[in-house]
Amino acid sequence: MLDGPLDVLLKQLASLPGLGTRSARRIALHLLTRRETLMLPLSRSLKDSADAIKTCAVCHTLDTTDPCRICADPARDRRTICVVATVADVWAIERTGTYKGVYHVLGGVLSALDGIGPDQLTLDDLSTRGGDDLREVIIALPATVDGQSTAHVIADRLHGRSVHITRLAHGMPMGGELDYLDDGTIATALKSRARV
Amino acid sequence: MLDGPLDVLLKQLASLPGLGTRSARRIALHLLTRRETLMLPLSRSLKDSADAIKTCAVCHTLDTTDPCRICADPARDRRTICVVATVADVWAIERTGTYKGVYHVLGGVLSALDGIGPDQLTLDDLSTRGGDDLREVIIALPATVDGQSTAHVIADRLHGRSVHITRLAHGMPMGGELDYLDDGTIATALKSRARV
Repeated sequence: MLDGPLDVLLKQLASLPGLGTRSARRIALHLLTRRETLMLPLSRSLKDSADAIKTCAVCHTLDTTDPCRICADPARDRRTICVVATVADVWAIERTGTYKGVYHVLGGVLSALDGIGPDQLTLDDLSTRGGDDLREVIIALPATVDGQSTAHVIADRLHGRSVHITRLAHGMPMGGELDYLDDGTIATALKSRARV
Repeated sequence: MLDGPLDVLLKQLASLPGLGTRSARRIALHLLTRRETLMLPLSRSLKDSADAIKTCAVCHTLDTTDPCRICADPARDRRTICVVATVADVWAIERTGTYKGVYHVLGGVLSALDGIGPDQLTLDDLSTRGGDDLREVIIALPATVDGQSTAHVIADRLHGRSVHITRLAHGMPMGGELDYLDDGTIATALKSRARV
């Protein structure tokens, strides 16, 4: 039905995560009928955000400043670094409001299948971060095979430095029901059981 | 975590149909890590589409030309007008490739609950369309109470003109299973049963 710029728009929308042809069409129509109130403002804020966004040279997260506000915040504890795969993970941990250290965004995890080797990640930068003051590296990578092998490589690289290497606890998610958990999680939660 | 333009962007994305805070965040991050290849192109094509889009003065659909390509196409039968609620419905019928008449987009259906009266719709335009040549008006409105009362109003308005007023057939969707259909549809399909 639509050609030219609209066709391009539909293809771009459909390529976004979680969207397909149908939902892209629905969103495009929603936008087209709200030209002044949503479509043009959205176009502008996409441009503004793209222009404003920077990658923090220290921790590799995305922010409007470089170094990012977390790395620049004097109240954050630079002696504790939390290693995460993506920027989304930084946002997720920040939303809890419980972590006071700084981050290191790897940019993914090692994956032979996806052809992601150490050079595609920011592993080298991590090895040199923190200096002698570094006290703890918390590995908060996905609990997958790739995540765990990446954690091993990180531990290897930090070998010889007097730093505690920890990982997030495994176990039942809060509000989780036993019946819906996979066997691996139940076994781990049982093994790591804690006194009440 | 993010402020300024990014916060605005997240709010706008979350307001799109089918998206929420979580999916907006996921899409924003997807875009931020693809600044040159997707984020800026998407911003541009939103602007281009918004600039290119016009409402057809004849049938009120959206297209890059006015009158739209359907109304301007000499091969389309102007004596048959299909009345639909939204532009999405025009697209849906066009995708079937089986309809050769023209359209009339109402812009919604009458709804006391949503405060949509005849003045918010293009009902007046419809009454004057087609002139003496008009042969058939196909009412393709949603099979809801509001859709049906809108259909009645249209029939009223066309009263006195020698024109056939038809509606889409009701019945089982192709590929539908009896067990998953609501009772009303089964009853209607049974009543309107056809010889094989």
